[in-house]
Amino acid sequence: MSDAFFRSRWVSPPDGVEQLDSSRLAPGFRAGAAHCGLKGGGKTDVGLLVCEAPQVSSSLLLTRNASAAAPIRVCRQRVDQGAVRAAVVNSGNANAETGEKGFADAWAMCEEAGAKLGLDPSLVAVAETGVIGVPLPIDAVLSGIGEAAGSLAADGAGAFSDAILTTDRWPKSCTLQAGGVTISAQAKGAGMMQPDFATMLCFVQTDAVVEDADTVLRRAVESSFERVTVDGQMSTNDTVLLQATGEAGAPLPAGLLEAVLLQLAIEIVADGEGSVRVGRVQVEGAASAAEAERVARAIANSPLVKTALFGRDPNWGRIAQAAGMALAGEELEEIGADSIDANELGEDIAEAEIGLRLDRGEHRAHVFFSDLGYEYVRINAEYTT
Amino acid sequence: MSDAFFRSRWVSPPDGVEQLDSSRLAPGFRAGAAHCGLKGGGKTDVGLLVCEAPQVSSSLLLTRNASAAAPIRVCRQRVDQGAVRAAVVNSGNANAETGEKGFADAWAMCEEAGAKLGLDPSLVAVAETGVIGVPLPIDAVLSGIGEAAGSLAADGAGAFSDAILTTDRWPKSCTLQAGGVTISAQAKGAGMMQPDFATMLCFVQTDAVVEDADTVLRRAVESSFERVTVDGQMSTNDTVLLQATGEAGAPLPAGLLEAVLLQLAIEIVADGEGSVRVGRVQVEGAASAAEAERVARAIANSPLVKTALFGRDPNWGRIAQAAGMALAGEELEEIGADSIDANELGEDIAEAEIGLRLDRGEHRAHVFFSDLGYEYVRINAEYTT
Repeated sequence: MSDAFFRSRWVSPPDGVEQLDSSRLAPGFRAGAAHCGLKGGGKTDVGLLVCEAPQVSSSLLLTRNASAAAPIRVCRQRVDQGAVRAAVVNSGNANAETGEKGFADAWAMCEEAGAKLGLDPSLVAVAETGVIGVPLPIDAVLSGIGEAAGSLAADGAGAFSDAILTTDRWPKSCTLQAGGVTISAQAKGAGMMQPDFATMLCFVQTDAVVEDADTVLRRAVESSFERVTVDGQMSTNDTVLLQATGEAGAPLPAGLLEAVLLQLAIEIVADGEGSVRVGRVQVEGAASAAEAERVARAIANSPLVKTALFGRDPNWGRIAQAAGMALAGEELEEIGADSIDANELGEDIAEAEIGLRLDRGEHRAHVFFSDLGYEYVRINAEYTT
Repeated sequence: MSDAFFRSRWVSPPDGVEQLDSSRLAPGFRAGAAHCGLKGGGKTDVGLLVCEAPQVSSSLLLTRNASAAAPIRVCRQRVDQGAVRAAVVNSGNANAETGEKGFADAWAMCEEAGAKLGLDPSLVAVAETGVIGVPLPIDAVLSGIGEAAGSLAADGAGAFSDAILTTDRWPKSCTLQAGGVTISAQAKGAGMMQPDFATMLCFVQTDAVVEDADTVLRRAVESSFERVTVDGQMSTNDTVLLQATGEAGAPLPAGLLEAVLLQLAIEIVADGEGSVRVGRVQVEGAASAAEAERVARAIANSPLVKTALFGRDPNWGRIAQAAGMALAGEELEEIGADSIDANELGEDIAEAEIGLRLDRGEHRAHVFFSDLGYEYVRINAEYTT
């Protein structure tokens, strides 16, 4: 793997980006971590992140899953989403499907972090990831929060990034400077790297001026995390947090946040569920934006296309079949091999581009997706017990 | 495997059904088969079925896939679907994504069968199954039709059933008597038992009086083939044909056609893509029929639930997550372990029942689905070349 953060063929960062040590946070932020016993082997499993600048604007995006986990419900109901000062995170337990105790536990994490940091608990976001349906050992977690608070440091991004991982094969983080501002980000992957589904979490810090954090984050997520699929399964715990202090007095360079989140999103796909390759399917010539999206997702989530990507099988017939299913009930001219570029499926490359040209209009859409191989089955067929 | 045709726990045939040798067709029908070289090892790959009674009423259900194969288009455009006398079938080549030549080839099969049988070609349905995007060796197929016509026999159902298989592990057919009528049926499975996707085909013959064949078949298919999923992928070639002569002077016993098609549908799931177990998920208490259906299909098509079924992992959290995804954007009370019966996932049984009780209304839906295991990946990751 390249040491360069922007290593995907599909990511185009703006000019003049300088890459810093990814353990450094953007100015005004500190982070720390601790081990409280949720993960084995002494691995850190509690992370704490805090903004100490005079002002902060923030945006918090949460999963839309109707079976949302307790920390999601706490963030929705009790957290001031535009003024998040701190985030407390545990890995190893998703605190999902855990009833009233789960909600109380997640809120207790906000309260404990707030007490240690001298903040109102409504300014503390909480995120959790790991097994589902298992009550949180809350005393151990609260003790871990205290320990993490004692380790806060401006170069604590690496420790924080490690503490939010479950069985990701590699950490996903960066610290970058451009246009007089600094941005740092830490993410973890979605996928069934544990016998239960894991979660996508992402934390972004910057000293740039961000006027409308919700709009800026929403737009960047639409072109990154919402363009990827591992297995089409929406998590109960997905969380993205953007915090901006404005201390640098300059805005984020155009395209920088989008490039950071897209690179992280592609890494999450590349590190998904035993996957070995990432595919990008691009649909052109659809009759509407919704149709382009539907066709692209039908292809990206087809187990036939995903196993073909795994097996390096340039099987364009499966792409035609998936597109035809997405357009069921319509009369399509045959798509045919001429309209499908699946040759890269057969190449020994890590990022395979697939194209489909319809002849129905001007709209297009693309989706990034992982392959489906033996490791996916092995990881997910294991007993929870 | 039991010798009894009705062997699924989920199928309740009407009383008084007698099982006959499944090579026997219902009175008034003959069938035959030949080998023309589409399949290796000398296996038969052309089947011919004809009704010789004075009258026949029929119904033909065809895939809604917008990339429908040539034989589907021929049936839609040129075949008198209410008066189908004969069916000509080949296995080993789906004749899909084959352009104008494909359409001409499929129609040539109708013409050749019609010529051999003394029928107008518009009275001959055509069905094909196998690899996609490969031109049909039409001369060999036409020659095979002639040979099959020479082998027509009243006990040719077994030969016909074998000729329509691709790599199904076992034939799926029955001949039954009840209430003074006879019904015979032959089906083949959907799934990727070949490197390309295969197809669901089903042919049903009876001497019963069937007043409105379209309504009767549509209703029976809704409670059988439309209740199953292997991998959520709609084929380009799916075809179901019902033919009824009325010679017995009696109607089909209530529930018989439904039971026959449901047993065949469950066999197709059981024989799908290296699957080893069949699951049935039953959702109750949904706010609408559409919601019940959406939740049931989200669970049945979840790769997490399917790998759990394969691994005998009673992982109810994955069921809650899939249901929550299907209801994304809504605020659900936690579903919780109490509302989910997934214990049978952990049992060593061939047919596992899974229940989910919502508390939103009176509606229910169920779907039958296969597991997802290593064989699925092995079969589908192989090179087409």
